[in-house]
Amino acid sequence: MVIGLFGFGTVGKGVFDILAQRADMRVKYVLDLRPLPEVTTAKVTRDLEEILSDPEVDTVIELIGGMNPAYQFVKKSLLAGKNVITANKLLLSTHYGELVGLAKEKGVSLRFSAAAGGGIPWLVNLSRAARVSRIASVSGIMNGTTNYVLDSMDVLGKDFDEALGEAQRLGFAEADPSSDIDGLDTRHKTALSANVAFGVAVEDEAVDAFGIRFVKKLDTEYWKEKGYVLKLIGKACRVGEKGEAVAAYVEPTLIPKDTPEGNIHGCDNIISFEGSHIGKTHFIGAGAGRYPTGYAVVQDCVDVAAGLGGLYHESLVPTPLSNCKAAHAYYLRTDFTSDPFFVRLEKTPAGEGWRTTAVSVSEMHDFARRALAHGKEVFFAGFPEF
Amino acid sequence: MVIGLFGFGTVGKGVFDILAQRADMRVKYVLDLRPLPEVTTAKVTRDLEEILSDPEVDTVIELIGGMNPAYQFVKKSLLAGKNVITANKLLLSTHYGELVGLAKEKGVSLRFSAAAGGGIPWLVNLSRAARVSRIASVSGIMNGTTNYVLDSMDVLGKDFDEALGEAQRLGFAEADPSSDIDGLDTRHKTALSANVAFGVAVEDEAVDAFGIRFVKKLDTEYWKEKGYVLKLIGKACRVGEKGEAVAAYVEPTLIPKDTPEGNIHGCDNIISFEGSHIGKTHFIGAGAGRYPTGYAVVQDCVDVAAGLGGLYHESLVPTPLSNCKAAHAYYLRTDFTSDPFFVRLEKTPAGEGWRTTAVSVSEMHDFARRALAHGKEVFFAGFPEF
Repeated sequence: MVIGLFGFGTVGKGVFDILAQRADMRVKYVLDLRPLPEVTTAKVTRDLEEILSDPEVDTVIELIGGMNPAYQFVKKSLLAGKNVITANKLLLSTHYGELVGLAKEKGVSLRFSAAAGGGIPWLVNLSRAARVSRIASVSGIMNGTTNYVLDSMDVLGKDFDEALGEAQRLGFAEADPSSDIDGLDTRHKTALSANVAFGVAVEDEAVDAFGIRFVKKLDTEYWKEKGYVLKLIGKACRVGEKGEAVAAYVEPTLIPKDTPEGNIHGCDNIISFEGSHIGKTHFIGAGAGRYPTGYAVVQDCVDVAAGLGGLYHESLVPTPLSNCKAAHAYYLRTDFTSDPFFVRLEKTPAGEGWRTTAVSVSEMHDFARRALAHGKEVFFAGFPEF
Repeated sequence: MVIGLFGFGTVGKGVFDILAQRADMRVKYVLDLRPLPEVTTAKVTRDLEEILSDPEVDTVIELIGGMNPAYQFVKKSLLAGKNVITANKLLLSTHYGELVGLAKEKGVSLRFSAAAGGGIPWLVNLSRAARVSRIASVSGIMNGTTNYVLDSMDVLGKDFDEALGEAQRLGFAEADPSSDIDGLDTRHKTALSANVAFGVAVEDEAVDAFGIRFVKKLDTEYWKEKGYVLKLIGKACRVGEKGEAVAAYVEPTLIPKDTPEGNIHGCDNIISFEGSHIGKTHFIGAGAGRYPTGYAVVQDCVDVAAGLGGLYHESLVPTPLSNCKAAHAYYLRTDFTSDPFFVRLEKTPAGEGWRTTAVSVSEMHDFARRALAHGKEVFFAGFPEF
């Protein structure tokens, strides 16, 4: 396998290091705007065409991240007949149908194991399971930053700002942590997981996402006493009478403490699927980091070299999201008590807020968006069915 | 893929059901001593040669279980140039080197995903990880019966006999539960996991195994108060200065409650590996049962059809076990206090027994065997490093 590596940041360097130890794969080019004098065994270039026009290169690895120029580079690479391996969850969850279609049309492999789960072999196992089982649902803690913050609140009794500040000092949260704490990172991973699980191409932005920005210590402390721990969960499941529709959402979730999900610490992730024949299967490990993510990329390389194709179903079924068909109980704390939804909600007092009876996911997320638009306080967390 | 299915018991029926839904695979023969009138889409035969001499059959699935005649049937099938898929942990862990060697010599696939982990994609993921990472250790709860019993003792406060009796009534434990509660089932799975992880062929009987037959409620209650839960763990790891040797053992283990391992309930299993690049990765799910195990067998079929080979390394390195090089602290309860090992043991009182400083695994297991040979009481549990 002869490789063109796009991007030489944290993960790019990790992939380069791991590949350097293998005899069966060679990085011939590194595409980067910087000169990179430390790279001595590959040609560093700023010219995409130089790489794509080299017939010796069969595979490119895209680790630039973000939408542009990664989107154009990946499209051009597929059109040039190269296998593409990428860790880019934003790109894949946004342009899934188009890129998968292009890969099929050109008869090349498009793999993206590292785009969800980091070092956990999540998407590859989900894809394998879907070969034999009908997957009913996927769910889990898919973001290490929010898990670190919520774990500090739970175990050490910290308040949100303090826990986030510490995560930033230790490098577990970015200076602008919005994508993590508002659930956008988890949203991309949930959309991709739904696509691989159900053979669909959901619209990333249609996935309802409510993060942990507004959680307070009084929320986590109240529910800890009752045997729950708060986690940010991404979930996608089949809904409707025959499972013909798909619901997908990201929301804070109150997990019973005596479960595997309730005992995931630090930056670790846990992701699960439930399928026919097998029941629920969980995967736990490092959801991010240079070497875990690099490892997942190299696993994709080995699979492409072994002649395996993509992680997707034979055909993608266009399926709009139906979050109105998924419902469960919620904990809700808000001062937007004049809203008609709140007024008619069946609820009992719980701590500084209320515990509701089963409410549809779309209604609760819509309410929260209205509350925020009105400058009101709102925090909610779902109770999953176990 | 045209298949000869050997055995039509619990798992055999499950495999048959799952395969009946697939267009890409066909069971042409079922080998069984019974006539099986319910099988209408395949020929039921008692004649192995009829199946092996049919050139249309490319793959056999061995689900007879036990050593004989499964061993002879599998050998003959490999010699006849058939791919072999089996769930037989006893057979594989006993004759690993010979059968893997035969498969390589004949250029066929030998896969055994269902032999450890049931519906959990354990061995296949371990094998995949070993392609890119150097595996340092594997460990986990690999037996559902013992987990059911220990979970009942922990959560419901039952004594061992009561918990085991209930498991037998509910069908989670066999009438003769020795293989499960004495750790022999876990020993086979640990040996197989070591082989796949490290590219070795360990001798199954050399794996030290001490089960849960002698545990008492006073043991689990004492340690529960201190934040531990008792689990039967199989573990294999590289030991020695350069990791050149392998330790492998099965023993009751005191797990901190706030971990995934400490929150595995009922008959579920959790198995983990630790490797370079990725840290620790855990897999949780149904470790047994008709459809979970059948599912794993069918996954092997799909992989064989996709042209994948076995789950083993290119070459097997003969590696004797070195359980003298693995050491950790233990909880020990015994009345064999005259034994020289006990006398010189560094220990402090703990409940009805003692907590020791780090002791080698082989010394502790040897002591327990001596105690039992002298008709003495003995129970011990290791403290893992987390």
